Amino acid sequence: MDFFQVISLEEALQRLRNHFPDNRLEIEEVSLLQAQNRFLAEDLSAAENVPDFNRSTVDGYAVKAADTFGAGESLPSLLMAAGSVRMGQKAEMTLQKGQAVAVPTGGMLPEGADSVVMVEYSEQFDADTIAVYKPVSPGENVIARGDDLRQDEAILSRGTWLTAKHIAMLAACGIGRVKVYRPVKFAIISTGDEIIEIDQPQNIGQIRDINSYGLASIIAQWGGEVTYRAIVKDDYEALKQAMTEGLAQADVLLTSGGSSVGERDYTYRLMQELCGEDVFVKGIAIKPGKPTIVGRADGKPVMGLPGHPSAAMTVFRVLMSTILKQWGLNLQETLVPARLSINLPSAPGKTTFQMVSLQQEQNGFVAVPIFGKSGMIHLLGHSDGYIVLEAHQEGLEQNQQVLVHLL
Amino acid sequence: MDFFQVISLEEALQRLRNHFPDNRLEIEEVSLLQAQNRFLAEDLSAAENVPDFNRSTVDGYAVKAADTFGAGESLPSLLMAAGSVRMGQKAEMTLQKGQAVAVPTGGMLPEGADSVVMVEYSEQFDADTIAVYKPVSPGENVIARGDDLRQDEAILSRGTWLTAKHIAMLAACGIGRVKVYRPVKFAIISTGDEIIEIDQPQNIGQIRDINSYGLASIIAQWGGEVTYRAIVKDDYEALKQAMTEGLAQADVLLTSGGSSVGERDYTYRLMQELCGEDVFVKGIAIKPGKPTIVGRADGKPVMGLPGHPSAAMTVFRVLMSTILKQWGLNLQETLVPARLSINLPSAPGKTTFQMVSLQQEQNGFVAVPIFGKSGMIHLLGHSDGYIVLEAHQEGLEQNQQVLVHLL
Repeated sequence: MDFFQVISLEEALQRLRNHFPDNRLEIEEVSLLQAQNRFLAEDLSAAENVPDFNRSTVDGYAVKAADTFGAGESLPSLLMAAGSVRMGQKAEMTLQKGQAVAVPTGGMLPEGADSVVMVEYSEQFDADTIAVYKPVSPGENVIARGDDLRQDEAILSRGTWLTAKHIAMLAACGIGRVKVYRPVKFAIISTGDEIIEIDQPQNIGQIRDINSYGLASIIAQWGGEVTYRAIVKDDYEALKQAMTEGLAQADVLLTSGGSSVGERDYTYRLMQELCGEDVFVKGIAIKPGKPTIVGRADGKPVMGLPGHPSAAMTVFRVLMSTILKQWGLNLQETLVPARLSINLPSAPGKTTFQMVSLQQEQNGFVAVPIFGKSGMIHLLGHSDGYIVLEAHQEGLEQNQQVLVHLL
Repeated sequence: MDFFQVISLEEALQRLRNHFPDNRLEIEEVSLLQAQNRFLAEDLSAAENVPDFNRSTVDGYAVKAADTFGAGESLPSLLMAAGSVRMGQKAEMTLQKGQAVAVPTGGMLPEGADSVVMVEYSEQFDADTIAVYKPVSPGENVIARGDDLRQDEAILSRGTWLTAKHIAMLAACGIGRVKVYRPVKFAIISTGDEIIEIDQPQNIGQIRDINSYGLASIIAQWGGEVTYRAIVKDDYEALKQAMTEGLAQADVLLTSGGSSVGERDYTYRLMQELCGEDVFVKGIAIKPGKPTIVGRADGKPVMGLPGHPSAAMTVFRVLMSTILKQWGLNLQETLVPARLSINLPSAPGKTTFQMVSLQQEQNGFVAVPIFGKSGMIHLLGHSDGYIVLEAHQEGLEQNQQVLVHLL
């Protein structure tokens, strides 16, 4: 039996975008510290100018720059001392031509001043006179009102994946609570008579349920939740019940395993029962991961993932991140440029995901491909990321620069 | 007043290592799914060989490779059919010279067999005879016992920061529970009359408590916990009480702010009271972050961080990661090679941490330095990472390859 109608990865991703066009996630408001690793559900803009006044970046004298032009060590500009501004206080005076007002670092410039002469280049001559020994240009030693952030300027856009730097920036903007999408809920079902819980003693031919853990750990990395999990024997009724229950309890239903013909039959049959006409991916021209099935039931993605853990994890990352982006979660991948250690042939007509380890060298990295032959644990444990060989690519050459998608 | 006795970054890190030589964190056991983003507190090795038997990677016939040497399309090797092995079952027979035993993908090779002929290159001639049309070499199409993982082979070492790939690998090894270090507890105190809570209306000269959020978000990223937090006015008794309480409730005490002379005095005086002789860093030759103080009280790190958020966050990352590594938490930084967009002067005698944004170009990245002049929020929001200019470096040139430490 072969029900696969293999399509290109590009076509598969396009079908995913077409079938999951918009966001289905509710929005909740959380405090800033709870917002980390969540996805922003609103566009944020600045409520005020930052700074809210022209601020000195040095200790010195606020002046009109034009009054200092031509000043030098031997011939200082002499300005009239017109008071001082204290830290944390409003500058009440207006600076007139020929005047200088003392300001501290962080202090407010009086109206009329356009620059600050550093204290090092000035001298209080007498009670009324300030000598300036070096000219300043307009704007020098000043952060102007709104320089850092203009009122109504966009700060962060909807979908931003909030990390430490965003939290600090939002704090700086005085934003203590933000709207974020609620975590995406996943159901994970592993199928097959041979699947056992990971801590069970393993007999010959039995396979530990690695996929549940591998997928759950990616989901956790993305800030999602596993709300349903089951290991189901090779039994139509049991699988039907698990898939129905999983679908009810989650936003996304994942099944993996199904290496035997019987299991694949059941999974496929049940996907058709759940999704009706909406089983729109039945095999993808990728390596590994060809036997991937995707459908839609109750508006939710239903994915039949390959049984091999490394393949299941890679396919899940690529397909699911596409759907999550449609839902407004702007997942960011980290890409690291590296030099390829060996020639790498491509698989004609297939997009290849090649696992690699990264080794640091002088000012850069070498990507060393890891092959499956040496085994699954080896592959899982030593891979730092993967590189993508497009279906049309001829293969990659040793020492060629590649971009590694970090795991 | 200037109490700073500035030392090099290298010297500061060495003093940190000397003062915090060993681990002070208790160990707890958690299930694998709870172990993500935690640090492994044990060396793990394989309890068994993986696979535990010689396993076929194809559907075909298990043979002695020598029996197929010379086989070809026109002159096949004829072998005696000696039964079959079923998936998930032990191979009970011993293969003799001249015999072939049918094995499925994933099945166990009988003793005596050293390779598998793919079914495509063989044919059942009659009930007793298998024709082999292509020679195999010893080991071909076989994952030998222990090939993936040898019994007692090291899998992961103490201190590993557990991510998705480790979780999947441990699941594959049948390890369902692991020992991890309990989260490190931090106390964060922001000092200064001018500090207000982030969502308070801000008057001229007031500064929002950005540091608490910036530091807390790095701590969360590292899997730590903030167990005490306070904003304290410029008041000796209040600061003393907060620092004493914070020290009691955490493993690490952080203070930040103290931009005024009075605040710095108080912080320094109290650090001396808490730490006695053990204030061993009083200024570091780094830019930004010179006014950094570090001591030890009750065996715990006490850090006085600079007030500027970006400086406080960078200094905290660099110093604290050094201490956490001493404590057995093997924090991993992500480094991305990039081309520098402009010439970058160094600060003679100082280690410079230069914030940069990363822009993708063909097969790589450009690092674009971001300068503080345009303001704090700009700096926080647009930085993707930083590059380090060593104290002895002359500066960096445009288009030079640099390594960006991702935030």
